[in-house]
Amino acid sequence: MSATANPAASPLVGLVMGSDSDWPVMEAAADALAEFGIPFEADVVSAHRMPTEMIRYGQTAHERGLRVIIAGAGGAAHLPGMLASVTPLPVIGVPVPLKTLDGMDSLLSIVQMPAGVPVATVSIAGARNAGLLAVRILAAGTDEFAASLRTDLLDFASDLNAVASRKGANLRQKVSEVFAEGNGSQRGSR
Amino acid sequence: MSATANPAASPLVGLVMGSDSDWPVMEAAADALAEFGIPFEADVVSAHRMPTEMIRYGQTAHERGLRVIIAGAGGAAHLPGMLASVTPLPVIGVPVPLKTLDGMDSLLSIVQMPAGVPVATVSIAGARNAGLLAVRILAAGTDEFAASLRTDLLDFASDLNAVASRKGANLRQKVSEVFAEGNGSQRGSR
Amino acid sequence: MSATANPAASPLVGLVMGSDSDWPVMEAAADALAEFGIPFEADVVSAHRMPTEMIRYGQTAHERGLRVIIAGAGGAAHLPGMLASVTPLPVIGVPVPLKTLDGMDSLLSIVQMPAGVPVATVSIAGARNAGLLAVRILAAGTDEFAASLRTDLLDFASDLNAVASRKGANLRQKVSEVFAEGNGSQRGSR
Amino acid sequence: MSATANPAASPLVGLVMGSDSDWPVMEAAADALAEFGIPFEADVVSAHRMPTEMIRYGQTAHERGLRVIIAGAGGAAHLPGMLASVTPLPVIGVPVPLKTLDGMDSLLSIVQMPAGVPVATVSIAGARNAGLLAVRILAAGTDEFAASLRTDLLDFASDLNAVASRKGANLRQKVSEVFAEGNGSQRGSR
Amino acid sequence: MSATANPAASPLVGLVMGSDSDWPVMEAAADALAEFGIPFEADVVSAHRMPTEMIRYGQTAHERGLRVIIAGAGGAAHLPGMLASVTPLPVIGVPVPLKTLDGMDSLLSIVQMPAGVPVATVSIAGARNAGLLAVRILAAGTDEFAASLRTDLLDFASDLNAVASRKGANLRQKVSEVFAEGNGSQRGSR
Amino acid sequence: MSATANPAASPLVGLVMGSDSDWPVMEAAADALAEFGIPFEADVVSAHRMPTEMIRYGQTAHERGLRVIIAGAGGAAHLPGMLASVTPLPVIGVPVPLKTLDGMDSLLSIVQMPAGVPVATVSIAGARNAGLLAVRILAAGTDEFAASLRTDLLDFASDLNAVASRKGANLRQKVSEVFAEGNGSQRGSR
Amino acid sequence: MSATANPAASPLVGLVMGSDSDWPVMEAAADALAEFGIPFEADVVSAHRMPTEMIRYGQTAHERGLRVIIAGAGGAAHLPGMLASVTPLPVIGVPVPLKTLDGMDSLLSIVQMPAGVPVATVSIAGARNAGLLAVRILAAGTDEFAASLRTDLLDFASDLNAVASRKGANLRQKVSEVFAEGNGSQRGSR
Amino acid sequence: MSATANPAASPLVGLVMGSDSDWPVMEAAADALAEFGIPFEADVVSAHRMPTEMIRYGQTAHERGLRVIIAGAGGAAHLPGMLASVTPLPVIGVPVPLKTLDGMDSLLSIVQMPAGVPVATVSIAGARNAGLLAVRILAAGTDEFAASLRTDLLDFASDLNAVASRKGANLRQKVSEVFAEGNGSQRGSR
Repeated sequence: MSATANPAASPLVGLVMGSDSDWPVMEAAADALAEFGIPFEADVVSAHRMPTEMIRYGQTAHERGLRVIIAGAGGAAHLPGMLASVTPLPVIGVPVPLKTLDGMDSLLSIVQMPAGVPVATVSIAGARNAGLLAVRILAAGTDEFAASLRTDLLDFASDLNAVASRKGANLRQKVSEVFAEGNGSQRGSR
Repeated sequence: MSATANPAASPLVGLVMGSDSDWPVMEAAADALAEFGIPFEADVVSAHRMPTEMIRYGQTAHERGLRVIIAGAGGAAHLPGMLASVTPLPVIGVPVPLKTLDGMDSLLSIVQMPAGVPVATVSIAGARNAGLLAVRILAAGTDEFAASLRTDLLDFASDLNAVASRKGANLRQKVSEVFAEGNGSQRGSR
Repeated sequence: MSATANPAASPLVGLVMGSDSDWPVMEAAADALAEFGIPFEADVVSAHRMPTEMIRYGQTAHERGLRVIIAGAGGAAHLPGMLASVTPLPVIGVPVPLKTLDGMDSLLSIVQMPAGVPVATVSIAGARNAGLLAVRILAAGTDEFAASLRTDLLDFASDLNAVASRKGANLRQKVSEVFAEGNGSQRGSR
Repeated sequence: MSATANPAASPLVGLVMGSDSDWPVMEAAADALAEFGIPFEADVVSAHRMPTEMIRYGQTAHERGLRVIIAGAGGAAHLPGMLASVTPLPVIGVPVPLKTLDGMDSLLSIVQMPAGVPVATVSIAGARNAGLLAVRILAAGTDEFAASLRTDLLDFASDLNAVASRKGANLRQKVSEVFAEGNGSQRGSR
Repeated sequence: MSATANPAASPLVGLVMGSDSDWPVMEAAADALAEFGIPFEADVVSAHRMPTEMIRYGQTAHERGLRVIIAGAGGAAHLPGMLASVTPLPVIGVPVPLKTLDGMDSLLSIVQMPAGVPVATVSIAGARNAGLLAVRILAAGTDEFAASLRTDLLDFASDLNAVASRKGANLRQKVSEVFAEGNGSQRGSR
Repeated sequence: MSATANPAASPLVGLVMGSDSDWPVMEAAADALAEFGIPFEADVVSAHRMPTEMIRYGQTAHERGLRVIIAGAGGAAHLPGMLASVTPLPVIGVPVPLKTLDGMDSLLSIVQMPAGVPVATVSIAGARNAGLLAVRILAAGTDEFAASLRTDLLDFASDLNAVASRKGANLRQKVSEVFAEGNGSQRGSR
Repeated sequence: MSATANPAASPLVGLVMGSDSDWPVMEAAADALAEFGIPFEADVVSAHRMPTEMIRYGQTAHERGLRVIIAGAGGAAHLPGMLASVTPLPVIGVPVPLKTLDGMDSLLSIVQMPAGVPVATVSIAGARNAGLLAVRILAAGTDEFAASLRTDLLDFASDLNAVASRKGANLRQKVSEVFAEGNGSQRGSR
Repeated sequence: MSATANPAASPLVGLVMGSDSDWPVMEAAADALAEFGIPFEADVVSAHRMPTEMIRYGQTAHERGLRVIIAGAGGAAHLPGMLASVTPLPVIGVPVPLKTLDGMDSLLSIVQMPAGVPVATVSIAGARNAGLLAVRILAAGTDEFAASLRTDLLDFASDLNAVASRKGANLRQKVSEVFAEGNGSQRGSR
């Protein structure tokens, strides 16, 4: 992978969240972007505590050179949908699970947007996939950078495959040891 | 009840919804307000299609003399929470059920607000109760109008009681007829 | 904020719960009221263990000078709705999560009230927002105290905004350090 | 079955509901009681619209000779639990499904009672089973009437068995005709 | 309370569960029965591992003098319903929560019985209420023992009331100390 | 496919359900078996109304030559699990949706079996797949019939593929007509 | 909007679904693409009935010039996730609701993808938003076409705003007529 | 039980999972197979990270002598269904619970397969039952091995019964000690 994460470069992705308490979940999006060398910015932009700034952030995002927004939020998670309503950019929403309901409230608040204003929703706490989806979106372009990212994504898929294959080999080895003849032949007690 | 709904009077309650398709549900809030003679205004204020106007509606509501906002929305129902983030007024949220999920998405999107920005949520499609809650809020004041509304609310509770009692009398009569000796003595088939 | 919490003053808000085991959740409502200098009373009023006292509490609340009731309950959470059925005051319900179901039973038992008897429901364990909603309701009045509370609420919103902005600055700083060129460029293992 | 439903006899079961709109569901409880010749009374006793009468109904039920209470309610279904809190009698709760949520809110509001105040909950809209459970409870007594009811219940079970067996015979016949050789041999299109 | 738990006396309640791993939950039912001096028996009767014995247990229960059955089970919780299908006695079902789903599967498997075969379901893990419901059922009889139990139940309700009142007094005291003027007046940080 | 459904042949699959009202759903299992020429028997075997017969059905099934049991049931759907507890045969469970809850109760009651007694659960109302799963199980054998069924299953998969491919061709044709230049170019109204 | 849907042009978006029965839901995605003049192709590509073709479709999509894939599926909706696993393109998933569960199964099957393979999920039956999200993704590019699409998207947002504003005006007019003095002043009957 | 687990023997069951992190759950399936002496193979075969290998695994499974496939997966759990789409073998799916949602997403993604491609789903984390179901399927054959397995399964059921009976005896003993006269007679405090 040729590119490296250069925060000094003009950011292409805006990574925002409703509170800094979301960072432990959202950090994985930053990691993914960095792995592909995508310059990004990260910020707290609360729909409920900074509504005016949030609207402005969305309205100016494409003018500032951002090409994708990733927004994480929990509970009545309004941030992704509100940003989507004021920007023409694709907005990726990450449902952050809070103390109760396992993120089901966050998921529904983010994904069930009305016709006209889409949010690209990923899995509960799926910030890494949000970052990878941003890479895929940038890789869908027609320029050189996009072509290079497509190559990187194909490499990335190969790596995933190789890691999974290696895990398979390890598992086969472990099972062959544990379940060698004479082992594991006792019936469990329940 | 002495007061009558006078739309020419300066509205005390703002009744807003994300789309005119919410009106069949939200109309019951208007009826409740009218029954108590509360002047109100009704409007379409979409969080997702009119974000700037929505923010302005919320920011100026208390300056224009509104004292309560009722907001209905369905799906990723952001309107009540977003209004609550830009007004000091109490905001009542009505979850509107859409084609799927029976309003559970709307309910969670409205009620699960983060600390700092409350929304007073009523039942799914519970617009009538939203209107009545607005009346209770106005009746919690210290002026003459509030005192008069409190009296009206006590009368209202008496009426509810009387209606329910009458239904009980009717049911007792019906049951005594249907289950008179010799009737209803066949065991059902399943 | 000029007012201070003075428990000797005649309470304006009744803060009740079904059991003292709800206090760790409900305490945040008391804190919020105290922050705005709202005199309140707190008590255990169990719908199921003290039904007669509960009815009396509700019936006399407005006569004793209370203007808002906050009621927390868990499981088959009947307290908020039962109080609402015997008082003209606005009743705020707080769903308290118990050992199973994450408070979803409490939420539905509180919010799904029948037409005629509204409960202003806040989020699961959202006692702080219950306190803030009570402040907004008192601030919706027409007297001096209400006007002063409205000002306090606008200040409160500014404070929320400032805190969130500061968190944003901290996050931007942290991210710029962590993701400086050369850092964070390793692809994760899964 | 020797006994017949005699509404003039002193009622042993109180069959109550929050609204007469629950009758179409609750009627099946009355039918079941009538089939076993259990005298009962039916009434509208709304927890939310007639709270004082509801409390009194519960408090006096055992003094008036009632031995079981069946209570149906929907949504925030407080009636069964509130009655259980003011009577020593066994209270059977029937969750009535309303327009949304398929009765899941009613079920949780009825069944999730706190320790100390049990409600014997049956299935959503399971009013027939509520009636049959009342019969079983009366049949658990030590008097002659109870012994006679136990015999009736064993007969009832035999009848259920016979009906189900007959349905089996019919199904076997139908299937043997439809799936005779040459029929049904076409593979479905999806 | 005059009676004491005498396991040597002929048991009136059968307390059964699908596995001894359910005992930590079900123990509370035994405690409740003991508190009211109800003789009971406890046993493991698994619907899935001892189906024949389970059927026999149910079929002979009323002949052996049992008057109520309490059955606890988790997951695909078939025990209460299967017992109910082979006994004329009232069967109380206790949904036991397992590692996943918080007992929602147990609750639905127990409560959603078909017409004809009722199970009196209590709350998830609500074994104490199952015991108390058994007491109420025995107290619904016409003999001396029943009358004495009714008195005990009224005493029990008084005790619950007294305990709750005492908790209220304690809470009022604590709150008056914590929120005395000058305390608790700092606004929280979130 | 060489074999035809011959009900006179000794049945290999027992297709049972709790009530004949389940037949409209369960019929699709019979159709699937008939398509593959598997002799089967169909019957009403209610866990709750015919418990003794149900146990006997399960205990003797493998002695009578059955090799797979398909059991459909709704609500507290105990039939599949109870049969599985008394037979060594593989039991396939079909969750039948009833009036409320969309079959979620049936699914959980069937699938959440305790360790030791498995039920092979298919989708809600998925009776056709239950039939096809029975075919796959018979095709997993080592005899000629199994080998022939495996061939039939591969043919069946080819047919599914061909049908889906044809649908694709039709859709491509339809879309090319509808969205030819000049059509479909109006922006929708919502 | 200058561009028109030209199916003869090389398609940029692949719009696929598991069955032609999904078309009534998925058609709205085609409409949205056509409104923005995006050339697309539509096809039936079933993960379960055409697995090999599905894999090939995904593997070759980017080589054939597609830049975004929209995939709709219901129930165990594997199509979007499986395509995402074999293409570097962004894949948008549309949960199609089937007869039961209101699309909740489809939503979870699509959105809950493991780390490494993201699917951009939209709302249940939200095909129109899937089309609009594809437009946003294409508009996130760096070429002229992207810039033109961004302008179109801003126009589109203006149109949404204008339509919503007009609906607001109509509602204000209707309400002013219905609730003129003397109208609507009767209290409802329930 | 005569047979022992012999990993050198040609495997009859393929036990696969999406990641080695599923092994702690899936191990119980291996144990069950080993207890019955069924030769099996275990491997990581990820639908999303190794799609081509996964397809090949399924397509060749029956040719390599496998007779049953057990597949465990979590979240958007596509592995069981995708394997079922490319093999004529019976596929058993095990929903693996991940950090959120308690395995409900995994369950629905596995069980809700479309008509034509069945997956035999067991309980959430029910890997032991998956192994036992595989044994039942092999025991449904017509050869000697199957007959021997049927005998083993009947023995297994006897063992389950004996263990459960022993637990019952222990519980009866414990309860008779704990609840001897004079013990357990204090009423609980809540």
